[in-house]
Amino acid sequence: MKRKVKVVIWGLGSMGSGIAKMILSKKGFTIIGAIDLDPNKVGKKLYEVLGVVENEDSSCIVTYNFKEFIKTDFADVCMIATASFTKVVFPQIKVAAEAGMNVVTTAEEMSYPRALDSELSDEMDRIAKENNVSILGTGVNPGFIMDLMVIALTGVCDTVEGINVARINDLACFGKAVMTEQGIGLKPKEFIEGVKNNTIAGHVGFIQSFGMFEEAFKIKFNGVIQEKEPILTSVPRSTDIVSIEPGEVAGCRQLGYAKLDGKEFITMEHPQQIRPEAETVKTGDYITINGTPNINLSIQPEIPGGIATIAICVNMIPHVINATSGLKTMLDLPIPRAIIGDVRDLVEDNNY
Amino acid sequence: MKRKVKVVIWGLGSMGSGIAKMILSKKGFTIIGAIDLDPNKVGKKLYEVLGVVENEDSSCIVTYNFKEFIKTDFADVCMIATASFTKVVFPQIKVAAEAGMNVVTTAEEMSYPRALDSELSDEMDRIAKENNVSILGTGVNPGFIMDLMVIALTGVCDTVEGINVARINDLACFGKAVMTEQGIGLKPKEFIEGVKNNTIAGHVGFIQSFGMFEEAFKIKFNGVIQEKEPILTSVPRSTDIVSIEPGEVAGCRQLGYAKLDGKEFITMEHPQQIRPEAETVKTGDYITINGTPNINLSIQPEIPGGIATIAICVNMIPHVINATSGLKTMLDLPIPRAIIGDVRDLVEDNNY
Repeated sequence: MKRKVKVVIWGLGSMGSGIAKMILSKKGFTIIGAIDLDPNKVGKKLYEVLGVVENEDSSCIVTYNFKEFIKTDFADVCMIATASFTKVVFPQIKVAAEAGMNVVTTAEEMSYPRALDSELSDEMDRIAKENNVSILGTGVNPGFIMDLMVIALTGVCDTVEGINVARINDLACFGKAVMTEQGIGLKPKEFIEGVKNNTIAGHVGFIQSFGMFEEAFKIKFNGVIQEKEPILTSVPRSTDIVSIEPGEVAGCRQLGYAKLDGKEFITMEHPQQIRPEAETVKTGDYITINGTPNINLSIQPEIPGGIATIAICVNMIPHVINATSGLKTMLDLPIPRAIIGDVRDLVEDNNY
Repeated sequence: MKRKVKVVIWGLGSMGSGIAKMILSKKGFTIIGAIDLDPNKVGKKLYEVLGVVENEDSSCIVTYNFKEFIKTDFADVCMIATASFTKVVFPQIKVAAEAGMNVVTTAEEMSYPRALDSELSDEMDRIAKENNVSILGTGVNPGFIMDLMVIALTGVCDTVEGINVARINDLACFGKAVMTEQGIGLKPKEFIEGVKNNTIAGHVGFIQSFGMFEEAFKIKFNGVIQEKEPILTSVPRSTDIVSIEPGEVAGCRQLGYAKLDGKEFITMEHPQQIRPEAETVKTGDYITINGTPNINLSIQPEIPGGIATIAICVNMIPHVINATSGLKTMLDLPIPRAIIGDVRDLVEDNNY
């Protein structure tokens, strides 16, 4: 029997903790390191922080000092779930890759880092190749439902005249940080101010998805536009965290348009709000391809964001270990798939 | 500018002709050879047979003598659309690969040839490697909607307890051969006889799709069952080819079950009939994953079989040219995608 796949978890927030728990539920993994800055977590054993049953695969001590830590042990893959932006996770990716670990990160911009950070991408590719590892950013969106699946679906099309993608989801289960990022509970004027001064992040991902489309089809869009609009409620809505009144902001409708040869080619719509059902809005993922043939796909309700991002990050681990070295995107690796049996069966011999 | 991608079309039936027409509608292709047995086609120029406008990329003469033909010219890829079964297309694949051509075939069994023909698969892999080409079987089903897309969708799942896949389609647009293969117009007793003595082929593909699942997940099903049932109509239905009365067979409902660890894991349902709307049956492709999370996907109407198979075969040409040598499946190659611009932009340098 092969040895277990060794994992380090960097970041024990909601995504990182979810990744750790999923890994511990699968056969063939062991977590040998966990890194976080929270003083309430540092120094404790990982299973205590996660609130799971004690186990040799989760008994490492959560540390904040990664540099000290990597002197004593190494892993096959480092899962980085600390931030959304390439510039922020780059130093962590560098440390992990230089320690000989493959990297999977939840950072949205890393799903297609060349869209915004071409030089850093070259640098990561160089570091990955020098250290014989691969680096991947992924998630449900960007990384899967509004890009990879759309591209795959065009595979059965002769012609493609235009593509519409919509992801309509409910943010009710999320915490205070997400409510603030999406401007929920603001007055319309405050929302518009927030978009102007960048305090309302909205969805990070359209620019990366568009980049992935350009690479997949080897085309160059002439004009990519992104807009953020407030979703105003006409009825009271509330969650455990926030209550809003008619006329207030229930969420952020993000819109993206990409033109090809002067004509609108891809339209993306991603309204994220709390309690859309309060105004009979059905959540779902929708892909419409206008072409030969026309294709109308819907997934109802939408693929849930949190668990799906956790799952795809973990499920890509064998592909990342098997891959040739370098900076990768979801376009470069085999199609994702669930880990049903022992993860070691999915890892090719001699690659770890 | 790179030279055009050179294609040979083997088989000018409905699939092969469609493939030829789609190729001719794209930038960067030229068809340098066409092979068919039909005396009404042999000796004519390809554009005459296809009924398209005369063009230097379609002016080759349709031949029946492939051996003579390959002495005089070679191509990058040979599209083989002659039959459904590996044993039948194998000699054609062998000739094409030994002539240094990559191969894409519509043969359903070739979408996962190891499911039934392990030795022939080894042989094809050997031939492909010796001649530095790759060989792929694909189509909308098997090859895409009831296997590849399902596998990809599990990529956002933590756990998968069970999978149900259904493809409900309308055969009204097809010709006499398909009506006979599916037993349309028979009495129920004749249908059951036809299934017994193999005159009713039904859908060729479940065994291949199950094989693809096993490879993707690195699992082994314990028990794969396939059944064919008549779909009896309760109202008159008719097409240009056939008219049926209440109580007669409107189509063939194919069912497939695969067990994992003794429990039903994948259920496939593929009722193919004429005019399902006559009894208010909605056509569509449906994928349900029972797991964490649950996923319910639907495509309505279904991805149309003919054009989608033609399209995916053509769209995979760049991937097949770019691939390392050997016998490939859709699991081995990058995700399919439409050819939107010039096909040469999708072909990596020095690979053809």
